Parts: sequence; structure tokens; C-alpha cells
Amino acid sequence: MTQNIYDDPAFFDAYATLPRSMGGLDAAPEWPRLRRLLPNLDACDVIDLGCGYGWFCAYAVGAGARAVTGFDVSEKMLARARSLNAHPAITYLASDLETLRLGRKSAGLVYSSLAFHYVENLDRLFSEIARALRPQGAFVFSVEHPMLTAPQVQGWMNSEDGRRSWPVNSYLEEGARTSNWLADSVLKQHRTFSTYLNMLVRHGLTLSHCEEWGPSDAELAAQPELADERQRPTFLLLAAQKPI
Amino acid sequence: MTQNIYDDPAFFDAYATLPRSMGGLDAAPEWPRLRRLLPNLDACDVIDLGCGYGWFCAYAVGAGARAVTGFDVSEKMLARARSLNAHPAITYLASDLETLRLGRKSAGLVYSSLAFHYVENLDRLFSEIARALRPQGAFVFSVEHPMLTAPQVQGWMNSEDGRRSWPVNSYLEEGARTSNWLADSVLKQHRTFSTYLNMLVRHGLTLSHCEEWGPSDAELAAQPELADERQRPTFLLLAAQKPI
Repeated sequence: MTQNIYDDPAFFDAYATLPRSMGGLDAAPEWPRLRRLLPNLDACDVIDLGCGYGWFCAYAVGAGARAVTGFDVSEKMLARARSLNAHPAITYLASDLETLRLGRKSAGLVYSSLAFHYVENLDRLFSEIARALRPQGAFVFSVEHPMLTAPQVQGWMNSEDGRRSWPVNSYLEEGARTSNWLADSVLKQHRTFSTYLNMLVRHGLTLSHCEEWGPSDAELAAQPELADERQRPTFLLLAAQKPI
Repeated sequence: MTQNIYDDPAFFDAYATLPRSMGGLDAAPEWPRLRRLLPNLDACDVIDLGCGYGWFCAYAVGAGARAVTGFDVSEKMLARARSLNAHPAITYLASDLETLRLGRKSAGLVYSSLAFHYVENLDRLFSEIARALRPQGAFVFSVEHPMLTAPQVQGWMNSEDGRRSWPVNSYLEEGARTSNWLADSVLKQHRTFSTYLNMLVRHGLTLSHCEEWGPSDAELAAQPELADERQRPTFLLLAAQKPI
């Protein structure tokens, strides 16, 4: 199963202090652009993979979704979700995305924010997702950008012309990377941009939009600490659709 | 119009000595993987944008294409193509890809190798291409990888852990970059990966496959000088299809 770093006490406590944990979707800088990729949620059946505190589940209900199921591997996350974002239309379920089985052809939206880079067998999960979507259903997700996850050791440096630069290496070598984000030895899976795209195609989904997120001028003015993130994208946002 | 660096005498002479100029397609390391993206060319009408010496045009005829039109901005390139790769089914035409107009719904394949990063108004050209393809026609092209074209000053460096790394900066700032590849001040257009993908979608084309090219183990054994290219992809290869 996936390394469940979220149940590590140090990680869980550090995660709880992140703006996106405390402030919900509006505190996640990529959210405005991710939201634009969503379909109309009115009367929609929604699945959220890696739902965390349930902020998106609550958003989906507010936007008219009929039923929302939030899956997460962490019981501690789910307990927080049930207290922060409870609603009769939302069901929170503990599940490992490595083995999760979904229903067939019922979902109008499968959504996932920053969870897939923890999943080792993502091709299996994409296959489940493709079958869970109803015709014309949407699949919208974000991951850490492959350029960010590629290097064996991650960190900014100055290039010869003095610009802040992100040194990329090992990009074509997919697989595990460890970083010390919030806790020691957090395990993430590096995949190339192509791998995400070809997995969509292989499972019969049609790419409808793609965004490489970096801060806009306005976001930079509000959060000057994001300046380096202009040099290379932080997140990859993808939207696909199941054909009729 | 596009900077026509290919008619610069120094550039033209240097270009003539490249393996891919002298040896044709088999001397281009990305060719085996680009070829796999091609449709069946039997009785196919083919358009090659930026045909250079005409190697691909000759290949297409050999693979059964009925008619091949090779466009290039450089008269010197076309003269070389007409002497090296002449065939009654091939027509070589001088054309600027910034203003080229194509016929409607006749092409079974539009192909382009390493030419689009010279084109400033690529969206216009993609619109022409989409209209030139017959239903189920294929669009297959390669460009320099966006990670390669991003930095203001391109060059390898060692990251803190001693690995050869490609410092990426300015990735989200699209536009002109100058480099000194074969001649001084060669002008190329940097675009993000997403921009290529979203241009396909916007013009009604469906992504069918994507490759980020770096050398395989076998290619590396044959050409050890390509070792750095394993750290980040050199080329982006994309295949799309026009729906029925």
C-alpha cells in the first residue's frame, strides 16, 4: 500500500498548519485555475480521490452535486473531514488508492487534488476512474509538476546568468523520490508529463485542457514568497472527458 | 516573417554537416520513435511543414504516399531537397509557415519535424493544419522540448549533489529566445508544453500520443556524447487526430 505519511504524527501536525489545510480551497493558490476546469456540478455524482479535510467535497455539494464520495487513506484526515465538512450528501470512506474499486459509469466528475504523486500503480487507478465515469463525465486532477518531482535532490540554485533556476535531472527515470517536505523521507512517485497524458489516452479519455500552474502577477503581489515559482511550474492541472 | 536563419550562409554550411542533414532520417536519434506515431501512409496525401532536405518526403513516398508536398521557407534547402530527394509524387514549395495557406480536408497526414519552434504565430498555423486534415487524418510533429527552450541562457550545470542538471527558468514566460546554435543569434520561440496541447484541443484535434525523447540505453551505447540528454528530454513528439 501507499506510504501513508498523513498518519505520521509529525506530518499530520505540520500539514494541519498549511494555509490550504486551515483556509480550505481559497488558500490553495492553484484553486482558481483548477475550478475553471470543472464541469457543471448540478445534480452531479462526484468522487474525490484523496479528499483530505473534505474541502472540495463541501464545495461540490455547495455547487449542486447530488452525492459526493470522498476517499482518503488516512483515518485521521477523514476524522477531520467529518468534523469540518460534514453534510448528508457527502460520504467519507477510508481507502487505499492502490487498491480502490469504484462503481461503474455513474460519476459525472472524478476529482483529485495533489494525491496521485503518492500512488505507485496509477495506471490501475486510471483504469478504475475511466470505468467509473458516465459518458461525457469529467476527470479533473492536479499533481506536483513533473519538472518539480524529477530531480533526485530538489532545490533552487542560481544559473550562470544569476537567475533563480530549478535544476532538472533524472526526468526520464520514473519512480520513487524521497523529500523532506513536512516530515523526513516523504515518498513520492515521479512521472513524466507524457506518462500522465498517455495514461488518459490509453484508458479512452480525451484531454480537454491542461494548465501548468505558476503564480500570476496578482498572486505574486499578494504572496511575494512565491517569486521562484514563476521560473518553473509548481503544479500540473489536467482535465479530460469520457467520450459519449 | 520567420527569421530565415537557414539561408544565412554560415548557418546553412554548418547545418549541412549535421548527421541528420547528411544521413537523413536514420541519423536523427528521435526518428524511430517519431516514425511509430505515423499512420499507414498507403495512398495517403502528406504535407511536410519545414521539409528541409526532403528526407521525410522521400520516406513518405517510399511508404506508399500518393502525393507529398514539402514546404520550406529556405530556397537553398529546397534546392538541396530537389537534388537529393526528387520524386514525381513530391512537390517542394517555398513558403513561410507564418502565412502559409493549405487546402481543405484533403491531407491524411500533416507532419513537421523541428520546425514549429521557429514559428511565431503557431496558433494560426494549427488552425490551417486542422482544416487541411481529412476526417481521421493524423497530425504528427516534433519540437525542441519546452524544458530545453525555456531558459534565457541555455546550458548544463552540476547541481548540489553533483548531477548534471538542466537549469530551468522563465518556463512560464513564452516568447523569443536567442541561442548560438550553428550561428549567432538564432531566434526560437519558447512555448510551454500546455500551450502545444491546448492549441491541439482548441482546433478540434484529439491527442493520441505523446513522447518526451531522450536516448535509450542502446542509443547511449552508440552515442555516448548524448549522456546528458538522459537528464531531461531533448524533443517533444506529439500525435493527434482529427475526429470523424
